[in-house]
Amino acid sequence: MKGPSASPLLTDLYQLTMLQAYWQHRMHDSAVFELFVRKLPPQRAFLVAAGLEQALDFIEQARFDDEELGWITRCGTFAPGFADWLRELRFSGDVWAMPEGTVFFPNEPILRVVAPIAEAQWLETRILNLVHFQTVIASKAARAVLAADDRPLIDFGLRRAHGSEAGALAARAAYLAGFAGTATAYAGPRFGIPVFGTMAHSFVQAHDDEAQAFMHFAASFPENAMLLIDTYDTVEGARRVAEIAPRLAQRGIRIKGVRLDSGDLDALSRAVRRVLDDAGLRDTVIFASGNLDEQRVHALVTAGAPITSFGVGTSLTTSSDAPYLDAVYKLQEYAGRARRKRSTGKATWPGRKQVFRCLDESSHCVGDTVALTTETFPGEPLLAEVLRGGRRVAPSPPLAVARAHCAAQLATLAPALRRLDPPWPSYPVMISPAIRALADDVDHRQATAALAQ
Amino acid sequence: MKGPSASPLLTDLYQLTMLQAYWQHRMHDSAVFELFVRKLPPQRAFLVAAGLEQALDFIEQARFDDEELGWITRCGTFAPGFADWLRELRFSGDVWAMPEGTVFFPNEPILRVVAPIAEAQWLETRILNLVHFQTVIASKAARAVLAADDRPLIDFGLRRAHGSEAGALAARAAYLAGFAGTATAYAGPRFGIPVFGTMAHSFVQAHDDEAQAFMHFAASFPENAMLLIDTYDTVEGARRVAEIAPRLAQRGIRIKGVRLDSGDLDALSRAVRRVLDDAGLRDTVIFASGNLDEQRVHALVTAGAPITSFGVGTSLTTSSDAPYLDAVYKLQEYAGRARRKRSTGKATWPGRKQVFRCLDESSHCVGDTVALTTETFPGEPLLAEVLRGGRRVAPSPPLAVARAHCAAQLATLAPALRRLDPPWPSYPVMISPAIRALADDVDHRQATAALAQ
Repeated sequence: MKGPSASPLLTDLYQLTMLQAYWQHRMHDSAVFELFVRKLPPQRAFLVAAGLEQALDFIEQARFDDEELGWITRCGTFAPGFADWLRELRFSGDVWAMPEGTVFFPNEPILRVVAPIAEAQWLETRILNLVHFQTVIASKAARAVLAADDRPLIDFGLRRAHGSEAGALAARAAYLAGFAGTATAYAGPRFGIPVFGTMAHSFVQAHDDEAQAFMHFAASFPENAMLLIDTYDTVEGARRVAEIAPRLAQRGIRIKGVRLDSGDLDALSRAVRRVLDDAGLRDTVIFASGNLDEQRVHALVTAGAPITSFGVGTSLTTSSDAPYLDAVYKLQEYAGRARRKRSTGKATWPGRKQVFRCLDESSHCVGDTVALTTETFPGEPLLAEVLRGGRRVAPSPPLAVARAHCAAQLATLAPALRRLDPPWPSYPVMISPAIRALADDVDHRQATAALAQ
Repeated sequence: MKGPSASPLLTDLYQLTMLQAYWQHRMHDSAVFELFVRKLPPQRAFLVAAGLEQALDFIEQARFDDEELGWITRCGTFAPGFADWLRELRFSGDVWAMPEGTVFFPNEPILRVVAPIAEAQWLETRILNLVHFQTVIASKAARAVLAADDRPLIDFGLRRAHGSEAGALAARAAYLAGFAGTATAYAGPRFGIPVFGTMAHSFVQAHDDEAQAFMHFAASFPENAMLLIDTYDTVEGARRVAEIAPRLAQRGIRIKGVRLDSGDLDALSRAVRRVLDDAGLRDTVIFASGNLDEQRVHALVTAGAPITSFGVGTSLTTSSDAPYLDAVYKLQEYAGRARRKRSTGKATWPGRKQVFRCLDESSHCVGDTVALTTETFPGEPLLAEVLRGGRRVAPSPPLAVARAHCAAQLATLAPALRRLDPPWPSYPVMISPAIRALADDVDHRQATAALAQ
């Protein structure tokens, strides 16, 4: 059957049971759902919106095929005729969203869906799945970008990313957030992301001596060989590079750089730099990897380790210190009436909303207001229409444009929010008085209805 | 272009640069790579092998298509003719592996690949990506299964899984480890896993009163409606269920259960149980969800909360307390000679290996020996041949068989290892004297080669 990425069966079963109930009870009015994050993980001071392009691709193309409908018919859960109704289902609604790369904070909708309730409910799970994951990664990657202080970072994390789509989309989200590129070859043709590669320990091990491995690899990539020098002893490896460099130079082969992947990277990079410099290899760069995250990158940069660029792997692609966000997609209005849930710890603000952001004279963001779409507040509105009547209002921006937007957004963060570690100041997100009043109205109406039944 | 899941471009670029070097330098001898976990995360006492079936599917089918080869030709990294050589590349080697569901420990190979070095190197990244992820999830899920003490668990985590493949494969890995099923519809037709669904808060909110929502949903699923009762007030929600139940019963509609998704689940489940029992609804079960993990499930079970089954979501599908393992795929032999790396903190044991496991008279596993394949030790050998000459020696076992194997494996864990929290006893994994002697030989040979150059 179809892979999971484009299948509308990649959803929670309850979306389909609810769809049957909506269908049977003729509930076809318009609903408003908003996607937002309830609270920040303790390790994050801000978030970066990402994944919109893939979510819109999915929304535009979502439909059931015969095989999927066959399962729905056979599985025993659903009523006769339901699959026939599903066959015609398409998304015909509108979507507003923050552009990818936008910095955002808790309780701010980053995506708003307005559509007949079945259409909006249907797609909840996969919209969340796509936007949540890339937002997790972009938010993690942005921290590393800030920590690296303009040194290039490369995504090295495919092997321990959670599956194929996570690997591919983590490369995209990291690039969006300011990484220089990825080791994931697929991301080159698929997203136009620069792809970088060096060599693995196995290559060195497969040769009977390390110098031979270096010679072979350099001969195969005479302009840009990066040699991995820590398989046996890092400083010895650097000496071997220094020894073979003149021989290679005679053949017109240049060693672009060396990679360190283990041990005390600060001390080793200095020792390796001395060996290379003493051999006249001042242009041979040092690249570092090996269990790096933004904290370790920051420590190496701050210490002045002579490392030109970094590979960041597992910690990035699994966002290991905060592998998920409290991201939700909640009904805020149905049939023209605002709605909210009041579950303990999970209450929502009702109504369809916009977010306004104010900057100070230094162009730092100083506070946001979450307001109803009927209100106007000072500052820039962050959500824009991206889909109307089920079709994009314009093509999604090229990834390079989203990446530039993200860089500009990160530049609006006040220094206190750019710090790697808490405590951070709480960024002010004001809920407008009209929303608060609406919440009271909804509660009152719901209590009255409960009494009247 | 092709999605990432079946693309051999979903790999680290360095696998391809190394392939070019192997090709140019005519290094086509046989290599042995082994996949193992270097150490346990602090939150795990044991691991559960999973993902083999998908890895073997990938290995059997891996080949480059024209579009992928076109990018390799155009991207500027590779030599003329390399893409033509890649076009013919197929995996022709052998694979040995632990069956899915096998419990294992650090330094034990769970998969061994023997093939011409380019073929084995080529597929490293995706093999790791597939086996690592499902092993992460199965290992996490097994903890929840042990914690739940035979109460059924349902995977609820698709929305915050890391992409589509992670969502689908997490459902599979959790079921393999003993979950009763998943909310992910796709996993039904794709893997034959039982799929469960209730209703969401949005369904309740879309109705002007909660009782009406319950009536609608129950009417649509007259035999197995599970009603979500915490949208406004959980105990009030239970009272509403009690009120409408007689009216529904007259129409032949039975409420199967209620779901709690927020608040103090222990106290609320007891209060709800009383309300339901007082109304004669003793067969109406209570299902609980909401930020659950194995710790919270265990606490509720231990406290005797009247909850029949649990939905476990984000903590499961992201393995949030240990979102990755230190899983690696390392060259252990090339051209008939054992190989090892000695990088700080990342040294490997050379040679091609088997793992033998001993059980005591209570059928608890008491110690493993990692040995060369030429050795024999007491106990059961855990790796079996699964692929020969690039083809499976037998079809992968049905998921139900792997699930039964996993249950049997978990039963071999001594009580001390089944505990949820550290400190755990260190499980004995002995490295055979022959492997240690081989490591010394390899080091000596490598040092001699380095001196001789």
